[in-house]
Amino acid sequence: MTTQVIVLNGGSSSGKSGIARCLQAVLPDPWLALGTDTLVDAMPASMQASDDGIEFSADGEVVVGPEFRTLEAAWIAGVAAMARAGARVIVDEVFLGGPDSQERWRAALGGLGVLWVGVRCDGEIAAGREVARGDRIAGMAASQAELVHRGVVYDLEVDTGRAEALECARVIAGRVAGRAG
Amino acid sequence: MTTQVIVLNGGSSSGKSGIARCLQAVLPDPWLALGTDTLVDAMPASMQASDDGIEFSADGEVVVGPEFRTLEAAWIAGVAAMARAGARVIVDEVFLGGPDSQERWRAALGGLGVLWVGVRCDGEIAAGREVARGDRIAGMAASQAELVHRGVVYDLEVDTGRAEALECARVIAGRVAGRAG
Amino acid sequence: MTTQVIVLNGGSSSGKSGIARCLQAVLPDPWLALGTDTLVDAMPASMQASDDGIEFSADGEVVVGPEFRTLEAAWIAGVAAMARAGARVIVDEVFLGGPDSQERWRAALGGLGVLWVGVRCDGEIAAGREVARGDRIAGMAASQAELVHRGVVYDLEVDTGRAEALECARVIAGRVAGRAG
Amino acid sequence: MTTQVIVLNGGSSSGKSGIARCLQAVLPDPWLALGTDTLVDAMPASMQASDDGIEFSADGEVVVGPEFRTLEAAWIAGVAAMARAGARVIVDEVFLGGPDSQERWRAALGGLGVLWVGVRCDGEIAAGREVARGDRIAGMAASQAELVHRGVVYDLEVDTGRAEALECARVIAGRVAGRAG
Repeated sequence: MTTQVIVLNGGSSSGKSGIARCLQAVLPDPWLALGTDTLVDAMPASMQASDDGIEFSADGEVVVGPEFRTLEAAWIAGVAAMARAGARVIVDEVFLGGPDSQERWRAALGGLGVLWVGVRCDGEIAAGREVARGDRIAGMAASQAELVHRGVVYDLEVDTGRAEALECARVIAGRVAGRAG
Repeated sequence: MTTQVIVLNGGSSSGKSGIARCLQAVLPDPWLALGTDTLVDAMPASMQASDDGIEFSADGEVVVGPEFRTLEAAWIAGVAAMARAGARVIVDEVFLGGPDSQERWRAALGGLGVLWVGVRCDGEIAAGREVARGDRIAGMAASQAELVHRGVVYDLEVDTGRAEALECARVIAGRVAGRAG
Repeated sequence: MTTQVIVLNGGSSSGKSGIARCLQAVLPDPWLALGTDTLVDAMPASMQASDDGIEFSADGEVVVGPEFRTLEAAWIAGVAAMARAGARVIVDEVFLGGPDSQERWRAALGGLGVLWVGVRCDGEIAAGREVARGDRIAGMAASQAELVHRGVVYDLEVDTGRAEALECARVIAGRVAGRAG
Repeated sequence: MTTQVIVLNGGSSSGKSGIARCLQAVLPDPWLALGTDTLVDAMPASMQASDDGIEFSADGEVVVGPEFRTLEAAWIAGVAAMARAGARVIVDEVFLGGPDSQERWRAALGGLGVLWVGVRCDGEIAAGREVARGDRIAGMAASQAELVHRGVVYDLEVDTGRAEALECARVIAGRVAGRAG
């Protein structure tokens, strides 16, 4: 089955966005790259740091409220509709809810060719990269590194602590099934 | 009919994004703000400045190719699906194709409560704001100021050369029909 | 005396940076634009939200600590040295300390041709623009609008609530004394 | 002699900025991080892509004109003055002119305690990271990887292809001489 959606799941600062951009560069067709960051940017500023939206606790843990969940569900439905309408889509996600998060996407993407990719990165390495980026809330990388992968099932996994983003993208691209596939 | 989608159409540097953020602040429910910039950011870097993607001519005119049109059509379908799935959405658009652009959105948004808003800004003022922003290609503001409104039909129009973004947002919010509307 | 430094003082969201970029566009010689934002970006992330660095209270008031003051003093000395070494410099500042802030700059810029410009913007208008920008801490614009001008002496003042940034820049440029001045 | 300035020299996408931010996090005192990017951002937009300013050729080579050199000389003098006024400064640089670039800094920093650090990164790795970042002109990383180090003399060198930014920062921090040093 032709791959229409690539879902990259990994913790904060694990290197998903870099892999997404490299995938856009190495794949022969044009792919849209959309993700959690796109959704959060689209939300009202007031939903960050509110009980209904997203909360960041002092140790970097992320808690999302009911209003966030409602908009997220609509977002997922919309991204699935884009793929059904013919766009190839790379989804850059953080499965804070583990298998529940995956299930929400799986249900929405039913009937589409999906490649599930785990983007691993050792917690200590990701925490160091969080410091190097300087634009993320300290502690998110460490708290998410293992959490987001628990109980999630992948077609393949890459490890950005052991290979460069472009290398990871090439491995993933090798598993993307083409139109004649 | 309840307003589910607000479409803001205006040229580059006319102040649409500022109005969108103000709308998110003044409207009682949470609204997603999505737009042309979101779509362009999601596209491969190579599609900017390519015959298939987006081209910026020396005088700021924007030309989009067939690959861009394909992804855009899927994007529009997806945004419509988000609204159908229950998200309220502010769409921040540049109708380079005038009535043809509007028709593409109108067809996709069929059955939804849509408020069509023209965001006007005198070409000379917009060109000055383009200089003040410093991050846009010179000439886009002037070349789009009139062009994007020709033949487009609105429920209401605002003029950011005559009123502040927040004021414009309040006028628009006054026309948003609520759930009991 | 030839103008070597233009100091723009105004509250958050008063439009100083836009005027600085317009000045760079309309002045015939190349000018460097440096400001409080440049300094804050250069500081360690940890100095934001710490007692020694910068603190933002819930209502947008900004408090700076001793470590901030030390680095700021060195920064001011360095910017003055750039002007003495031949660079024309636009300084984009927020005089939280009013006349004390101005005195720190005046002492450092001794012997240089300085044009002192007040960038006024009605507090309510600035607060609205803060919402439209969406990337500033709410309340800064209102709390600084009057405060930063108290007791400060200017060569000229502009009001971004009454004129566009480019227009303000043209007025300021008209007061910049050239090399043969 | 106490270290007052740390100069990081490396090609585009070699990871200098990440190391600078990690240094700010691991060093006990507050350090300012300033660099080529700060200077370029401070310049008029028109100086990019002009004969007098900065030009990027199709293969990512960077050419700077006389106006750039003039402002750069004043910038270097100013950064040196900041260090003399008591600020500890991390300078994040690209020595396009190799030993000539280093000599310009060495002359300006005379009398100050300077730690010269070479930030190496294999050209192919840096080129891959350039793709992953997605915001740099393609080709800069490869064309600068070796060039900027030719004839430059360092106190120590780090290699971001072999160690994480935080690790590199710790090695550099171990060579920073303290006040009692």
